[in-house]
Amino acid sequence: METLELVLDTGGGSISDLTSELRRFCAGRRDGLVNAFCPHATAALVLMEAGAGSDQDLLDWLRTHLPRDDRYRHRHGPAGHGADHLLPALFGSSVTIPVLGGEPLLGTWQSLLLLDTNLENNRRAVRLSFLPAS
Amino acid sequence: METLELVLDTGGGSISDLTSELRRFCAGRRDGLVNAFCPHATAALVLMEAGAGSDQDLLDWLRTHLPRDDRYRHRHGPAGHGADHLLPALFGSSVTIPVLGGEPLLGTWQSLLLLDTNLENNRRAVRLSFLPAS
Amino acid sequence: METLELVLDTGGGSISDLTSELRRFCAGRRDGLVNAFCPHATAALVLMEAGAGSDQDLLDWLRTHLPRDDRYRHRHGPAGHGADHLLPALFGSSVTIPVLGGEPLLGTWQSLLLLDTNLENNRRAVRLSFLPAS
Repeated sequence: METLELVLDTGGGSISDLTSELRRFCAGRRDGLVNAFCPHATAALVLMEAGAGSDQDLLDWLRTHLPRDDRYRHRHGPAGHGADHLLPALFGSSVTIPVLGGEPLLGTWQSLLLLDTNLENNRRAVRLSFLPAS
Repeated sequence: METLELVLDTGGGSISDLTSELRRFCAGRRDGLVNAFCPHATAALVLMEAGAGSDQDLLDWLRTHLPRDDRYRHRHGPAGHGADHLLPALFGSSVTIPVLGGEPLLGTWQSLLLLDTNLENNRRAVRLSFLPAS
Repeated sequence: METLELVLDTGGGSISDLTSELRRFCAGRRDGLVNAFCPHATAALVLMEAGAGSDQDLLDWLRTHLPRDDRYRHRHGPAGHGADHLLPALFGSSVTIPVLGGEPLLGTWQSLLLLDTNLENNRRAVRLSFLPAS
């Protein structure tokens, strides 16, 4: 399979924009589907607008709806880490995007973002895989 | 790739049922996966029951959990538009469904819905793509 | 298509771990994408850590954010059943995972879980489908 593992230095708890890596991976391929997959239990992959404040709005939403306090039964690591474990269920671990002529058909304002609220992991992997249409 | 871009007149802020378009697109094809992809940063694609009140229940859920007020840093357009930008992260921009003998294997009560709370866009695109199994 | 329908006795309202079924289905295949699809309007498929309390944390999250009370317009069956109908929109009905040499590339702590809060259905189906890379 045409596949590539990206390894990212996230610095522990951040949102990383992988859109240029995705475009570079697709360039030169033909038509098909590209799958981005995050193999971590405390991070998620989403498509949304990067910048213009929405990434901070998403972190604010998480502070309200997945607060980092002592409510979680999954307890280890830093305070509220149990919240990180609900992140991939809510936001998803993979994204599948159509590709035509080597171009992922993202809209103008769509970016591929790795959402990682885990303060303990500095290195994260994301796998890109291309399935040709024929 | 066997692919089709649907263009919808959503009227700005609505839920649109694309299930019959999806079935029509798959008809006559063989086995594989069909991917529905929404290239917009303020709309989402979901599978859920259409009608029977659930679409209104979803809009109510959004009013509570993604309220349209002035809390967002992403500010432009109508009041609360920042909420629209969190929608695709939470609900997803694509859905991938198995197809056998030209039939998407949806359950009886599953419909493919475009969820669009953006009051400013009247026209939306959704791309359907079919990847054959062999 | 290389595809298999799992039928589960969920007991009505539970979280079921399908990771070993997924691994067994992929074993012996080559490279490609595996799609797990849930054809139900009141259940969802997620990747997250099983056990260590996170499954209970997810059910707690649902009690707060999708409470089973009389707020829903979709009314039939047991109290609060309308909440079940919002579950697949929020959490998703399918998951697509890269496979190399017959191994789904799940991270160490990722499990494939069927999330089913519906108290009325005892039997649930999940379809696994493999699309080879060439």
